[in-house]
Order: sequence, then C-alpha cells, then structure tokens
Amino acid sequence: MTFRLETTQADFEAQFNALLSAKREDAPDVNKIVEDILVDVKKRGDEAVVEYTNKFDRMDIALDGLAISAEEMDIEIAKVSDEAMDALKVASDRIKAFHAKQIPEDLDYTDEAGVRLGYRWKAVQAAGLYVPGGTAAYPSSVLMNAIPAKVAGVDRLVMVVPTPDGIINPLVMAAARLSGVDEIYRMGGAQAVGALAYGTETIKPVDIIVGPGNAFVAAAKRQVFGTVGIDMIAGPSEILVIADNKNDPSWIAADLLSQAEHDTAAQSILITDDADYARAVEDAIETHLETLPRADIASESWEEHGALVVVKDWDEAVALCDRIAPEHLELALDNPDELERKIRNAGAVFMGRYTPEAIGDYVAGPNHVLPTARSARFSSGLGVLNFMKRNSLIQCDAPSLNTIGPAAVTLAKEEGLDAHGLSVAIRLNVES
Amino acid sequence: MTFRLETTQADFEAQFNALLSAKREDAPDVNKIVEDILVDVKKRGDEAVVEYTNKFDRMDIALDGLAISAEEMDIEIAKVSDEAMDALKVASDRIKAFHAKQIPEDLDYTDEAGVRLGYRWKAVQAAGLYVPGGTAAYPSSVLMNAIPAKVAGVDRLVMVVPTPDGIINPLVMAAARLSGVDEIYRMGGAQAVGALAYGTETIKPVDIIVGPGNAFVAAAKRQVFGTVGIDMIAGPSEILVIADNKNDPSWIAADLLSQAEHDTAAQSILITDDADYARAVEDAIETHLETLPRADIASESWEEHGALVVVKDWDEAVALCDRIAPEHLELALDNPDELERKIRNAGAVFMGRYTPEAIGDYVAGPNHVLPTARSARFSSGLGVLNFMKRNSLIQCDAPSLNTIGPAAVTLAKEEGLDAHGLSVAIRLNVES
Repeated sequence: MTFRLETTQADFEAQFNALLSAKREDAPDVNKIVEDILVDVKKRGDEAVVEYTNKFDRMDIALDGLAISAEEMDIEIAKVSDEAMDALKVASDRIKAFHAKQIPEDLDYTDEAGVRLGYRWKAVQAAGLYVPGGTAAYPSSVLMNAIPAKVAGVDRLVMVVPTPDGIINPLVMAAARLSGVDEIYRMGGAQAVGALAYGTETIKPVDIIVGPGNAFVAAAKRQVFGTVGIDMIAGPSEILVIADNKNDPSWIAADLLSQAEHDTAAQSILITDDADYARAVEDAIETHLETLPRADIASESWEEHGALVVVKDWDEAVALCDRIAPEHLELALDNPDELERKIRNAGAVFMGRYTPEAIGDYVAGPNHVLPTARSARFSSGLGVLNFMKRNSLIQCDAPSLNTIGPAAVTLAKEEGLDAHGLSVAIRLNVES
Repeated sequence: MTFRLETTQADFEAQFNALLSAKREDAPDVNKIVEDILVDVKKRGDEAVVEYTNKFDRMDIALDGLAISAEEMDIEIAKVSDEAMDALKVASDRIKAFHAKQIPEDLDYTDEAGVRLGYRWKAVQAAGLYVPGGTAAYPSSVLMNAIPAKVAGVDRLVMVVPTPDGIINPLVMAAARLSGVDEIYRMGGAQAVGALAYGTETIKPVDIIVGPGNAFVAAAKRQVFGTVGIDMIAGPSEILVIADNKNDPSWIAADLLSQAEHDTAAQSILITDDADYARAVEDAIETHLETLPRADIASESWEEHGALVVVKDWDEAVALCDRIAPEHLELALDNPDELERKIRNAGAVFMGRYTPEAIGDYVAGPNHVLPTARSARFSSGLGVLNFMKRNSLIQCDAPSLNTIGPAAVTLAKEEGLDAHGLSVAIRLNVES
C-alpha cells in the first residue's frame, strides 16, 4: 500500500523511518555459487568460461567463438533504424561533451619551504564493462559506462555481454561502437566477471570492472573487489519528486511512473506542500497506468514502495530529502536553485518543471549511473574520475629537506619507527 | 630469502610473476565473529558496545564513560613534549595547506542546445575515523585521516580509538585536537565500526568510515560497506625504489628498511641498472640492521619479501613498476620527471635523491594513506574527494526540451520503457 504521510501527523517520525528502512530488495544469497564459479574460472580459464556460457546461455560455442568480431557487429548494426541510430548519436555526443569537462587538472607547485608538491591524474590502463543480456540490455547503459572510460583515456575497454540463445542486441552493438569499446565477448554472469578480473588465455585481465548486473554479477563484483576496482553495487532505482501545486499532475505522475516501471523494487516518492495536489497526482497515476505497457510492474512498485509526503514548507522537504538521499531528485518548483543549494544528498538533480528525470537517462549528458539505497550520502555518480587515479608527487632538495626534515625525524622517533627517522636524518646537513 | 633478479636471466618472467603473486598477508577469517558483533551492536546499541569494550580492552567503564571528554584530552595533551607538539603542528599545517588545494570546483553552464548542465560538490555530513590502539596508534595517521575530512567540510568528525587497559596515547589526543575532531569515543574493533555505521543511543551514525585497523576492523568495514562508505582496505606497506649507482647505498638502504620495519609482511624492492650497486645496497642494509631497534621485524620483511632487480635500462624499470603498482615509489635519479611521466601506476612518487619516503609519512603534505597490493592500478590515496560527492545538475526549459527531448523518446521506446518516453513526450511542444 502506497505510503501516505503528512509531517503534521503524530506518528510521522515512526512512519517516515519505516519508509526509509523498508527492505525493497530481497537479494538471494548466491555467494557460494559465485565463489565456486570464480575459483573455477581462475583455475581453468577459457575452458571454464566456455562451459558456463554454453550452459547458462543455451549456446554451443567453441573457444574461438567467445569474441564478437567487427564483422558480426556490422551485421547487427545494419539492423538499427536510422531514427534510433540518430538518437544514439545525439546521446553519445552529448554524453561525451559533458564528461570531457570532468577531466581533472594536475597540480605541481613549490611551496615556501622549497618543497615541490603536487599530483598527476593518470588513466587506468584497462577497464571491463559488464552489459546485461536479454530484456535488461540497455544501449543507454553502454554509452553511460563506456564513454567516461574512453574520455578518461583508458587504453583498453573490454565489454562482456551475454547472448542468451545466441541473440545479440543490435542497439547495444551500435552503442559499443559509438563509444569506442575495444573488445567484446559474448559472456555474462560470474564467469564473465571472473574472466575480466583474473584474465584467461583469450582475455587479458583488466584493472577495473563497471556496469550493472543481476545478483550473480553483483556478488561476483564484490568478491573480485581488491583484485580489481569496481564502480558500485547498484540497487533498485529511485526518484524523489519535490513539486508544488503549479505542476500539471499528469506530468509529475509520469515522472513517478518512469522509475516505477523499471522494477517492482523501484521506489517513487512525491513530496509536496498541498494534500489536494498529492491526491491529484495519485489520480493521474491511475489514469496513466491504464495505458502503459509496463503497468503491472509500475503498479506493483507504486503500491508496495511508493509514497506521498505532505510537508508544511520546503525547508521540511530539504531535511527529508537529505535523509532519503535519493538517486534522482526532481525540483519541480519556480526557483529550484534555492532548494538545490540547501540539499546535501542526491545523486542527480533535475531542476524546474521541464526536466523530467528520463531526459537524464538518455540525452542530457551527465551520467545515469548514480548512487542508490541512500549511498548518495557518501558517493557520486559514475564519471571520468572512476577511470583515473591520482599519483601524488613530492620532491625535496637538500635545503628544503633541511627545513622540514627535523620535524619528521621527531615524529618518527615518537612513533618508534627509527628507520623512518634514519632515512631522513642521514640526508640532513649534506651538500647536494 | 630476498629475491635477486636480473631482467636478462632466462627465467625472469617466471621469477618476477612469483614475486608479484607471492601472498604476503595471511589474514585470518574473522568474518563470522565480526558479523555476530555487528548484529549485536545493531540490536543492543550502547549496551553491547560497553560490554565488548570492557571485555576486549580489559576496562570497566559505564555507559557514560564511552566518550573521551575535553578535560581528559587536556590532561593527556599536557604530557606531550614541546618538541613533539611543534613537530605535530608543522605536519598539521603542511597537510592542511596541501589538502586545501584539492577542493574541487563546481561546474554550471548552459550548452548550445540551451540545456543547463553541471555538478556541485558537497561534503559528506558525518565521518567516522578509526584509530588503532596500542603500539599501532600513530598520531600521523590521525592527521592524515582527519584533516582531509575537515578540509572537505565534514560537519561532524567522530573518532574511535581503543584504550586497552585504559591507556590513552597523548600524541593521538594532540593530533585529534589539531585536526578538529568533534567527538572521541574509547572503543575499537568491530564493535566501534558497528557503532559508527548503525549508531547507538550515545553515538549518532556517520556516513563514511575511514582509517586503518586489524583484521577485525577490516572485516567489519567490508561488512558495513553500503550502509556507509569506506576508504579502502589497506594491506601491508610497500616501497619500490628505482635508483642509479650515484646514490649513497646507505641512504637507499635506509629507505628500503623504513618500509620493512613497519611489518614483517611489508615489502621493499630496489630496481637499479647496476648489479654491483645492488650488492652495495644489500651490504648497507646489513650494516643498518645492526643498530636499528626494529631490526627483527625489518630483517624478516627484507628476507621474506624484499627484492633486488637489475634492469638493462630505465624503460624496463617503468614497465616493471607499472606491473608492481607500488604504494610508494622513489625515483632516486638525476631526472625523475622523465620517468615519472611514463609511469602509470604508483600511489605516491618521491622524486630525486633528497626525498626519502618517510618525509611523506609525516610532514611533506600529501596523504600517507595510499593504495596497497597493486590497487594503485585503479585507486588513489586518501584525500578531500573521499569526503565529498558530486550531485549532477540538469535543467531544461520548454525550448531546450523540445530540442533534445525527441531523441530521448526514441531511445526510451527502443528500450521498451514507455513511461520514460511519456514523461518527456508529455512536456514537448507546450508553451512555458
């Protein structure tokens, strides 16, 4: 049953906490299964990967059939309509342009003590991109995961995508080519994550693995973390819409349903200052559900996890938003900047009445891979920085070491680390 | 036995791979014990934390004794010598100055299509800092973990530090005060991590937990990851020194030993282009070991995990360095910049002959919390960005939505997400 709350009600805190802590996802414990597959892939390499792929994806490929060749891609891409290809290009160009602005600057300076300090950002050498197969194969996700890697300067971008029953998604191939993916393999599940992390005879290992996946993929990413970097473990999608009563209720209803249709575990929340308006949005949701193809999913999500919260003023909305820390936040108000500046925790903010969240899923430019399950409190959406790392630089000469070295010797001694102290002291008061 | 390799030897690849894959740390599996403690802390809060603290740290505190008060801090800080306090201040000032340069800039612009795009960096609201007790209580670590949080703008920085048998480290208290820590609790282990992640009656929960710890703390951080952010799971310390034969062998020997003395699982590697020089460094290590207080530890680390690698030229050194991806890298050469630009994977680079790694542990300014165990391939040292997150911003008006919206509608339809398409289409060709 959709949550209906007003901040003035006596049990609001208890109800709101119940909303926050409601468990939406019932992830099966697949850790042991995944661990066995990973160990097997690490040990038997290609042989294991081919076996699992043939078994799970109902295929019959040989070892040399793991890679998807440029020629196969050509055949698939030829099936994409001109309209869809043009839309993909609009998306790709806009995503590239926005991410190009994220390339960080290096730092290199000499301070008053004469010590040279700084850092240099360098790209990760090889990245793996997991793309789900079947119905969850979204070309937009390929663009959103692959483009930041290439903008960062990753040398080798390796995509894995399962092709159950041999079926390849043409738009996924088109998106991979537009993004500059270097290698593609038809494989999925924990076996694909293992192949990327450990390498096989065919596939060289990568340094980081990104991209969404089912419970097996998520568990595999967790388990290989450390051997390689990972992006994040994404939970079900979420939206919080903060709207006044001047928005067309059917627009806001469509926005709430655009998250709800993803998954029965998705969550859509409306915060407004007008109880009548909340009811009008609810009615509009019912009307939309009559015609939407994914009404079953959207309806279950809205019934189980949706919420309408009526506040006295927008400051209350800000405080509730920071506790929800939503993946997506719409501020459908006249002056969204004022609220945005007060809000700390949100993955992406959609400002004003003409910015439906879905515009950010496809063509706006910023990444649609965003922190879920309240992790916007401490993490950011995917971006160029995920594919770069910062090496810090320190350079002393004899005089500057003489200036700052004695304090280091003192602290090393206090910490009982005499070789640390020695390595500095031995260089003090020496002519360079 | 210390590894001694030359790139010209026939089995070099096999030997070098053995060096890379040698397991240095034998972390005990404490996952179940930690899980039980976390569940108990989540359920019983303060009561559980006090019980575990009294048991594991041989204490007898009541609930109101968990916090370390400002008065207690005063008493401890009064015990710090003037020399040590001055050295701490030098370190604190320099670390603050360097980290202040890491504050990222926001982005806010309107592109040719009329779409406003950007992002704003915001500080995490509350951070927890784990500080080990006993012999591993390093005041320098307090500075290195706490200062970036405060520079980022974290509102509430909560430190936990176990005080076995009631003993508090005065320098740790002094470092906490210099760094601006807001709350301190005398507790450690998984129970402290649980208290920070879930909150108790006394301690409000935090959003991210950073800082080093033993196997229990590392396991607890892994388990609460997702509920809160974490920094990284640090492994044993490492150094790679790339040095020509113009360095005093006893200087380079001291640098190698400064890592080796941390831990028997630490690793020190020298790469040089002169086999005679490698032997001279080895001899100097033996000489230093005769007088160093922590010779037992350093000697075991050097014997078990140390390595001397002789290369033909510096390009070979670059390639090997990228495979090692060392936490610390010294380039003790005339022109370190040339090599540094070619190297992709290193946590921090110490340039030239007068920059011993230990200067970076204490007073140089950059962070000494750095990626270990080859994770410099994909991750950076601790910094201000760990305590901030980027909220992206998107704002369309009616005309700009008309420009980019149709491509979004096309892609939504291709992906079978009709509510996504509807939320955009419903706003197209409408007067604002």
